[in-house]
Amino acid sequence: MRFKRLFTPGPTQVRPEILKELATPQIHHRSPEFSELYAAIQPKLQQVLYTRNPVLLFTSSSTGAMEAGVTNLVARRCLNLVNGAFSHRWHEITKGNGIPCDEFAIPWDKAIKPSMVDEQLATGKYDAVTLVFNETSTGTMNPLEAIAEVVRQHRDVFLLVDAVSGMAGAKIDTDAWGIDYVLAGVQKAFALPPGLAVAAVSERALERAKTVPPRSYYFNLPDMYKFHQKNQTPATPAIPHLFALNAQLTDMLAEGMDKRFERHATMAGIVQAWAKKHFDIYPEEGYWSQTLTCVKNTQSIDASAMVKTLASGYNARIENGYGDLKGKTFRIAHMGDLQVDEIQGLLRALDDILGF
Amino acid sequence: MRFKRLFTPGPTQVRPEILKELATPQIHHRSPEFSELYAAIQPKLQQVLYTRNPVLLFTSSSTGAMEAGVTNLVARRCLNLVNGAFSHRWHEITKGNGIPCDEFAIPWDKAIKPSMVDEQLATGKYDAVTLVFNETSTGTMNPLEAIAEVVRQHRDVFLLVDAVSGMAGAKIDTDAWGIDYVLAGVQKAFALPPGLAVAAVSERALERAKTVPPRSYYFNLPDMYKFHQKNQTPATPAIPHLFALNAQLTDMLAEGMDKRFERHATMAGIVQAWAKKHFDIYPEEGYWSQTLTCVKNTQSIDASAMVKTLASGYNARIENGYGDLKGKTFRIAHMGDLQVDEIQGLLRALDDILGF
Repeated sequence: MRFKRLFTPGPTQVRPEILKELATPQIHHRSPEFSELYAAIQPKLQQVLYTRNPVLLFTSSSTGAMEAGVTNLVARRCLNLVNGAFSHRWHEITKGNGIPCDEFAIPWDKAIKPSMVDEQLATGKYDAVTLVFNETSTGTMNPLEAIAEVVRQHRDVFLLVDAVSGMAGAKIDTDAWGIDYVLAGVQKAFALPPGLAVAAVSERALERAKTVPPRSYYFNLPDMYKFHQKNQTPATPAIPHLFALNAQLTDMLAEGMDKRFERHATMAGIVQAWAKKHFDIYPEEGYWSQTLTCVKNTQSIDASAMVKTLASGYNARIENGYGDLKGKTFRIAHMGDLQVDEIQGLLRALDDILGF
Repeated sequence: MRFKRLFTPGPTQVRPEILKELATPQIHHRSPEFSELYAAIQPKLQQVLYTRNPVLLFTSSSTGAMEAGVTNLVARRCLNLVNGAFSHRWHEITKGNGIPCDEFAIPWDKAIKPSMVDEQLATGKYDAVTLVFNETSTGTMNPLEAIAEVVRQHRDVFLLVDAVSGMAGAKIDTDAWGIDYVLAGVQKAFALPPGLAVAAVSERALERAKTVPPRSYYFNLPDMYKFHQKNQTPATPAIPHLFALNAQLTDMLAEGMDKRFERHATMAGIVQAWAKKHFDIYPEEGYWSQTLTCVKNTQSIDASAMVKTLASGYNARIENGYGDLKGKTFRIAHMGDLQVDEIQGLLRALDDILGF
């Protein structure tokens, strides 16, 4: 099999030197060498997330960390802000766990605005609100900073953020913005393979979690925090991923987070210009994602055929639209360790395929 | 850091050529190449588990797959058979999820006997029973075949088996014994790194799961089975582990499962003889585990010091007793890809340290 270079919005391309880290010999999860590894990761994760909060490690996909958020942190009623497939999933998770909640849904090509959140929270019904920062299904980047500012004005409302395809690709100033829970899977802008999720949890969130009747044994934040304080995890974690995460965090901080975010913005600008020239961009202007572009297929090209030709002829993968948006959109990721020239090369390949 | 060879009851030692498989370039989880990988793994897993049932893949530790079992498969009331830390954990999980259940607890140095199970099930209160096949905390191997025979006589009762440190190290004839749910983490006798669990689920279990109100979104068996039929997983799985699992299953089947089990039995016999000569064995005779031996510290040696000296002086790790058994017992694993000569070498090292 010839491996394809991944321009997909997760899993993303992983550098060979990071892949090799996965192959580090195994260590025991209750040994001093494990705690050293855990302790080495923690301050680096905190730097990347701009937080002094503990960053817990989940051996699960991001969906697991989403479930952990609502099952541990909603004491009264949760507001699920929905403008895409993954924010809808968070509502399904909340509802499916029997947690009182309401969905506030807007069209998928629109961003959630701070005023909408303010209006909903003003009802006084909620003590938690979920938001997807960067909707992988639509390429919409919701205005997190401004929304967080609104949520802060409702003192007892906790802000839970799915930053799956945003974290490490766009700045999230966790503590300054007062985010209580922000999660991501490492197979997106962290440019690691899937199998691990991370979440920064605020002190008051950890306090509330102690008072919420636990709905899961595996996704139990107070338990995870108890082990965290010993530089351990309650259950045996995905140790290969921890080796790779440790190395990748070092490289990310060596690049510099500001530079990393700039590189993402530059790549985003290039793809957006290409998309505007030949097609359109799915979400409303002003809210285009910095890590992936969802192209609106205004020319009615055969998106499936294009994806296949790119894979077979150029050994590269982009992704068709998500769910109902299949064919109507397609998605190009510009995140992780991808470089500007790789993005330019990809667009040339698409030009060739589409005859532009 | 000098890496220690692992004689711990999980994580276990992983061969270098299997570690390298983890470093395979990433593929996309919704691509044909992923489905090919998934489809290649499935029949091999079925052979190792002696089953025609689907074997589902969990991106979680075994604890997650334990939670999935009780949250999806108990319609009425669950009996948790407890004779060690992990069977007690399963009761905690069941109770913690608000599932009606009772704990049937016996001393940790005793095995669960079929007659005990029969007596409990005869009450007619239960439609599911959980059993830990091989208690990693005590080195007890419960008589699974005989217990399964008893459970089969209670037609509507499902048998859920945690085979975490037993599967692939001792024969589990899943279909012949009528086991409805049998799970394991791959970091034990599969000799892979942690981060993935597997579970074979019977047809009638999948049917019942559809009728049980879901308690978790992430651990949802009907949803996992739906994606399984497309050779996919609902959420992005731990892809590095799937590459390694695929290669390791090929090697296991090339060795031959009977030969593999024999090798485990041979290593167990050697360690048991050593333990009886110098100490004693913690569980009652007749139920000693084939994959790990829990040595009863009848000589009151300093077990912590021995573990440390072995690590620093011989670059090898065994494990102290679990929880309250720390110091009173210590544990030597003889599972996975460990060979007879490695076990003999380890015991010589312990002889040197202990002055035998």
